[in-house]
Amino acid sequence: MLVNLSSKEFINAVGSNSPAPGGGSVAALSGALSAALVNMVINLTVGKEKYQEYEEELIAIRDKSIELQERLTRYVDEDTQTFNLVMEAYKLPKETDQDKSKRSAAIQDAMKKAAELPLEVAKACLEVMRFSETVVSKGNTNCLSDGGVGCLMAHAGLQGAVFNVQINLGSIKDEEYKQRLTADIEQIEKEAEGLSKKVIAIVKSQF
Amino acid sequence: MLVNLSSKEFINAVGSNSPAPGGGSVAALSGALSAALVNMVINLTVGKEKYQEYEEELIAIRDKSIELQERLTRYVDEDTQTFNLVMEAYKLPKETDQDKSKRSAAIQDAMKKAAELPLEVAKACLEVMRFSETVVSKGNTNCLSDGGVGCLMAHAGLQGAVFNVQINLGSIKDEEYKQRLTADIEQIEKEAEGLSKKVIAIVKSQF
Repeated sequence: MLVNLSSKEFINAVGSNSPAPGGGSVAALSGALSAALVNMVINLTVGKEKYQEYEEELIAIRDKSIELQERLTRYVDEDTQTFNLVMEAYKLPKETDQDKSKRSAAIQDAMKKAAELPLEVAKACLEVMRFSETVVSKGNTNCLSDGGVGCLMAHAGLQGAVFNVQINLGSIKDEEYKQRLTADIEQIEKEAEGLSKKVIAIVKSQF
Repeated sequence: MLVNLSSKEFINAVGSNSPAPGGGSVAALSGALSAALVNMVINLTVGKEKYQEYEEELIAIRDKSIELQERLTRYVDEDTQTFNLVMEAYKLPKETDQDKSKRSAAIQDAMKKAAELPLEVAKACLEVMRFSETVVSKGNTNCLSDGGVGCLMAHAGLQGAVFNVQINLGSIKDEEYKQRLTADIEQIEKEAEGLSKKVIAIVKSQF
């Protein structure tokens, strides 16, 4: 599994001459790191008298952000797996008409999976961004920049995942499906853009 | 060393109740991953006839971006090391006036190191962003989204590093030093903002 490689090995694997792991897995990793930063800030806030009024809210977020951290960590490998499914579909025989039709259906099927996985990454990153707003506003002020970096990493993961949805949609023929996912990512990007500006402004105002 | 932990272990270490590793090391990791993505796109472009006219330019970039990938990987650990130096300085005795003056000088010294390391991270990420513009314009179009994610990760790393410069500058008393570093980061952020918009527009225009 990719996430069992050391960070150094993973970086080297990305930088190699193999197309996988690539931007999709890196986007998921960025999301996992963002959720971890949110969790760290909550862990360093809960139990401190100064922040007692926010304790219940922060604990409720942590229950969700731990799950997001674990899920986004799994997506690092799942993104590369769906990419490999697409590569395998392209390698199917294309000699007879039946072959061609089978291959084409397999490619379309794999492409849909390869578009849906980064859509899930983007949705999970958006949730982390919402939580990052809470931690930079109500979390331990000693961790202000950590919460801020959490927001940046979630936004980069989200935008990177959206690139991966879009590039795969380019090969999908089902127009209704394309329109549905395109509408989804537009909405996600819009909310993310607003959250990013808001969180960066909160962080910068406190330096 | 942090970069010898598996990605999964590193994510869990960030998400724990320890303040280190935190946003500074994550920002450096984001930069290292961005340089790796640039390198991957170059590796999957060089040698292909279709891109022959850009080959020389891309190889020249790769010579530098491999060094950036290695340097940013080292910064992952160095950022946490400088953070620990600050923590150690705060633990110095403060009983006598001489203690207090020694401790204060040690804190200021450690704070400067803790501001300068993320400044180096930000500068390195800016270089990667410049290279990402070239790879999304002249690199293998099959890797368009990878080059795009490279730009996003470099920008997140840069902005996260800038947060870490700023938070440490808040504890530094040397006004001339503060002004110099503040001017540096303003210039870096401005160029990065422009590059980010440009690269995202190039990527999105090709989907």
